[in-house]
Amino acid sequence: MAEMRVTPWTVEGKIEYERLIKEFGTSPITDELLKELESTAKKPLPVFLRRGFFFSHRDLNVALREYKEGKPFFIYTGRGPSGKMHLGHILSFLMAKWLQEAFGANLYIEITDDEKFLQKREYTLEKTREQADKDILDIVALGFDPEKTFIFKDTEYVGHVYPLMIKAAKKVTFSTMRAVFGFTNETNVGLIFWPMYQVIPTFFEKNRALIPCAIDQDPYWRVQRDIAEGLGYKKAAAIHGMFLPPLQGTEGKMSSSKAESAIYLNDDTKTVRKKIMKYAFSGGQPTVKEHRKKGGNPDIDVSFIYLKMLFEEDDKKLKEIYNAYKSGEMLTGELKDYTAKKISAFLEEHQRRKKTDGERLAKKMMYEGELARAMWERVYE
Amino acid sequence: MAEMRVTPWTVEGKIEYERLIKEFGTSPITDELLKELESTAKKPLPVFLRRGFFFSHRDLNVALREYKEGKPFFIYTGRGPSGKMHLGHILSFLMAKWLQEAFGANLYIEITDDEKFLQKREYTLEKTREQADKDILDIVALGFDPEKTFIFKDTEYVGHVYPLMIKAAKKVTFSTMRAVFGFTNETNVGLIFWPMYQVIPTFFEKNRALIPCAIDQDPYWRVQRDIAEGLGYKKAAAIHGMFLPPLQGTEGKMSSSKAESAIYLNDDTKTVRKKIMKYAFSGGQPTVKEHRKKGGNPDIDVSFIYLKMLFEEDDKKLKEIYNAYKSGEMLTGELKDYTAKKISAFLEEHQRRKKTDGERLAKKMMYEGELARAMWERVYE
Repeated sequence: MAEMRVTPWTVEGKIEYERLIKEFGTSPITDELLKELESTAKKPLPVFLRRGFFFSHRDLNVALREYKEGKPFFIYTGRGPSGKMHLGHILSFLMAKWLQEAFGANLYIEITDDEKFLQKREYTLEKTREQADKDILDIVALGFDPEKTFIFKDTEYVGHVYPLMIKAAKKVTFSTMRAVFGFTNETNVGLIFWPMYQVIPTFFEKNRALIPCAIDQDPYWRVQRDIAEGLGYKKAAAIHGMFLPPLQGTEGKMSSSKAESAIYLNDDTKTVRKKIMKYAFSGGQPTVKEHRKKGGNPDIDVSFIYLKMLFEEDDKKLKEIYNAYKSGEMLTGELKDYTAKKISAFLEEHQRRKKTDGERLAKKMMYEGELARAMWERVYE
Repeated sequence: MAEMRVTPWTVEGKIEYERLIKEFGTSPITDELLKELESTAKKPLPVFLRRGFFFSHRDLNVALREYKEGKPFFIYTGRGPSGKMHLGHILSFLMAKWLQEAFGANLYIEITDDEKFLQKREYTLEKTREQADKDILDIVALGFDPEKTFIFKDTEYVGHVYPLMIKAAKKVTFSTMRAVFGFTNETNVGLIFWPMYQVIPTFFEKNRALIPCAIDQDPYWRVQRDIAEGLGYKKAAAIHGMFLPPLQGTEGKMSSSKAESAIYLNDDTKTVRKKIMKYAFSGGQPTVKEHRKKGGNPDIDVSFIYLKMLFEEDDKKLKEIYNAYKSGEMLTGELKDYTAKKISAFLEEHQRRKKTDGERLAKKMMYEGELARAMWERVYE
C-alpha cells in the first residue's frame, strides 16, 4: 500500500483521515456539531454531511455561534482549472450551495488559472484560461444564487486585490512557504508568491469566511490564520471534505490526470455505465455462487461509496442496499446498475442545466449579478 | 574605508566603477561608442554623458545599430518612492529625457510603490503610495513628451501586466533570485516575486528596451536577459549611471535616508546654500593662506563634482574653474558659492514648473496622453 501523501498538489496512498486531523491540527466534525449545524440552518443536512464525507473543520462552531449572535459568515471556495471536471470536484461546491441556501450567505468562487499554469510545467496560460472558462459553465450549473455569488478568474481580477495581497505577502517568509507547501529552491517565484492569492478571498468581507474544501487545501488556511488578525480580518473557518475515491478503489483520489479513475461531468449515460461496469472496484465475490453464499463487502465497494456519499439521498433505501449486498441477495452487477443509473440521472440534469442556462448564469455570477457588480467596483487595499 | 557593496537596496563604501563593470559583466562606454551615440542622435551629448557619469552599458551599440536599420527602441526607467527625491534621483530621468528628445522614443516610467512597501519593514502601503504621488509631480516637471510618456504606479497598473508577469515568473526559480538579489529564507514572498514587475516593462513593446538607470539596478536586467527571448521579446539594453556622491564625500551615494547627505528637489535657495556651505566635502586647504599656496583638489571636491556631472554645461567654464581651484586662485568659498547658485537656479526653475504644471502633466502622462490612453487599453499576456 502506498504511503499517504496529502498536499495541495499531491494526494496519494491510503488516506487516513483521523491521522490528517491530527497532523493538520484540525477538529473532527462530531455528531453534536452536526446537530448544531442542522438546528442553526433550520434545514435537513445533505447526505455528504450526515454520512461523514465532510469530516473535519476549523472554527465551524465559532462561525455558527457568531451567526446566531447576528454576525453572518460568508462562503468561499474555488477551483484550479487543470483537466476536465469530474464528480470528485463537485462536493465542495454542493456543500457551498447548501450553506448558501441555508444561511443566505454570499459565496465567492476563485478560479485559479494562474496557479495551475505556474504549477504544471507543460501548461500554457492560454490553456488554463480556456479550461477555466469551461469549468465555470460546469460550476454555475450546480445552481448557486446568481445575485449572491461571485466567480472570478485570478488573472482577470488581480488588479482589485493586489494591494491587499502584498500586505499579506509581507507577513509571510519563504521559510514559512517552504514548511507549509514543500517548496524548494527550484520552485518558480510565481508559485512561491501564489498562495497569497488563495488567501485573499478570505478577506473579501470583514465577516468570517467559511470555506468548504477538500482537506488537502487546509495548508492555505494555516497561513491565513497566522496573518488574518494582524491585517484586521478574522481567521477563516473551514469545513473539510474527504477525497472521492477513484473508480479503482480507495487509495488516492479521483483524478482528471488518470482518465480511467474518473467520471467526468460531461460523460454521457453510456460512458458512465461502461466506466462503472468496467472499472468500479467491487466488494463482491468472484462468482455469483460465492457471492450468494458469502455476500459482498459494501464498505470497500466504490459503487456503494458513491451512493453513500452523494447519490442516494434516501437513508432507508441506502440501508436496504447495504444489507442486500452484504447478505449476497444483491449482486455486484445489480449494485453497479443502480449506481450507474443514479449518477447518469444526476449528470443528465446537470448537463441540461449547463447547456440551457450555463452562459447566462456565468455572465451573472462573473459580471452582472448584484454581488459581482459590487466586486468589480471594489479594490482591496 | 568601507567595503564596497552595491545591490538594488544597498550602496555602500568607495565605489569602484571598473570593478562593477567586471563583476556585473557589463561593458564600458567608450569614446567611440559616445561618438556613435552622438552621430546617431544628431544632437550634442549632455554633460552627464560626455563627462562620464554614464559609464557602463549593455547592448547600447546594438540598440543604436537597430535604430539605424529602422528598428526603434523604447525607453524605460523608474522610481522607488522611498523618502523625498533629491539630486541623485534625477540623472536617469534626464538621460531618459535626452534619449526621448533625440530618438523620438516612447518612455515608460514605473513607480514601484509595491516594492518599497515590501522592502522596508516600517513602511505602510499608504505611505509609499502618498510618496509615489509626490514623486510623480517631481518627475513630470523634468519635462518629458506628455504624449509619448507613460507613468504608472505598480499597484494601480498590475491588472494589465499580471498574466505576462506570471509567464516570466515561471521561468525564474528562488535559487536564481537568491543568487541575483541576495534574498534569504526570511525574505517575504512578496519581495521574492516582486523583481518580475521591474522586468515586465521591458516587454511593453516588441522593440528593444533601452534603460537608463544607476548601475545598482543591473541585476534586474540580468534576469530579464535570461528569459526575454524565451518569451518572444528582446534582451533589454541598458545605460548605467554612477551614483551622485553625497555631500559628505565620495563614498556611497546621496541618500534620502540620510538627510544631511542630500539636496532635495524641493530645497529652497537658502537651504541649498546652507547645505553646500556646511556639508559639501571640500578639496581645499584648511586655511586661505595655505590654499593660495598649495591649491585645492577639484577631483575630490563634491561641489566641483556636482558642477562637472550636472550643473556646468559650459566645458570651457568648467575647465577654468578646475584650473583656478587647483592653482589656489579660486577659494573653496567661491567654488561653493558658484555651485550653490547653479544648483539653486536649476531647482527654482524645477519647482516653478512643478507648481504651475505638475498636476496637469501628471494627469497627461498617467492617464490622458496618447501613450497613456493606449496603455490603459492594453493587457499584457
